Amino acid sequence: MKMNFEIRDATKDDMNDVLSLIKELAKFEKEPDAVEISVEDLVDHGFSSDPLFICHVAVHENKTVGMSLGYKRYSTWKGPTMHLEDLIVSKKYRKKGIGKALLSNFIKVANSLGAKRIEWAVLNWNTDAISFYEFNGAKVSNEWYITQMNESAIQNFLKKHNGSK
Amino acid sequence: MKMNFEIRDATKDDMNDVLSLIKELAKFEKEPDAVEISVEDLVDHGFSSDPLFICHVAVHENKTVGMSLGYKRYSTWKGPTMHLEDLIVSKKYRKKGIGKALLSNFIKVANSLGAKRIEWAVLNWNTDAISFYEFNGAKVSNEWYITQMNESAIQNFLKKHNGSK
Repeated sequence: MKMNFEIRDATKDDMNDVLSLIKELAKFEKEPDAVEISVEDLVDHGFSSDPLFICHVAVHENKTVGMSLGYKRYSTWKGPTMHLEDLIVSKKYRKKGIGKALLSNFIKVANSLGAKRIEWAVLNWNTDAISFYEFNGAKVSNEWYITQMNESAIQNFLKKHNGSK
Repeated sequence: MKMNFEIRDATKDDMNDVLSLIKELAKFEKEPDAVEISVEDLVDHGFSSDPLFICHVAVHENKTVGMSLGYKRYSTWKGPTMHLEDLIVSKKYRKKGIGKALLSNFIKVANSLGAKRIEWAVLNWNTDAISFYEFNGAKVSNEWYITQMNESAIQNFLKKHNGSK
């Protein structure tokens, strides 16, 4: 079932709703306590003179029901690329074309910024999302492992290698 | 066996050597024809007023034997992060501490820029690299799939959805 909604640039005033969507996704991804960021952080990081991300919201009857958030990356094979960090539609508003509209908008923006590739990550058990992305022409690969050093791993490493070259 | 080398910020003049290292890695990763970028591109993208990456080189007896290249990213859970796009040591200079020094330098730079996390991708069959990263405190995960739309997938999508909202 289709419904009326609008996709537009997010403003500072949307960051409260955007954080609610981020928390909803973290819960769905089984990491409800992983969100350490605040509304003030999102405002600082996204709306300064050197913003760290771009964000769009999907609005239905004055309610924020979805969002996309991404930023520039760089490929040493292809050149400038874009990363789609989050594409979120609130649970009761799914299957109405909102996710597709948010993805479509992000692809248009990325293309206008000269991105040679768009990349994002999907959980391996999220088969609905994987099918959706593949249907829209993306290639989902299990060839690469994502490697992360979190804050404590960084501090441990620095403590251990302090003073060394 | 240890050897003398220096890690320093890359300059425009290093981009020729950096591109050679990028091509050496692409060959190792079994994608020798994937590198579409030129020396001029690297200079434009890395040394403009709004650079798309930071790059460091490892130099031994005036020869560039390794490099790291990365850029800012953003986590909606943690805040500002850094991505390590490439960490390359030329084949005959491996196992001499150069990779460790390049990684260590990148971690220090990322920490000084306020990164809450450092992330990168590793090929699932590159067990030497995986062991090296895990030994240094990184977490290597097969939980996420990397999803990409390349240039032709982007153009196909836009052609199909031209004019639609």
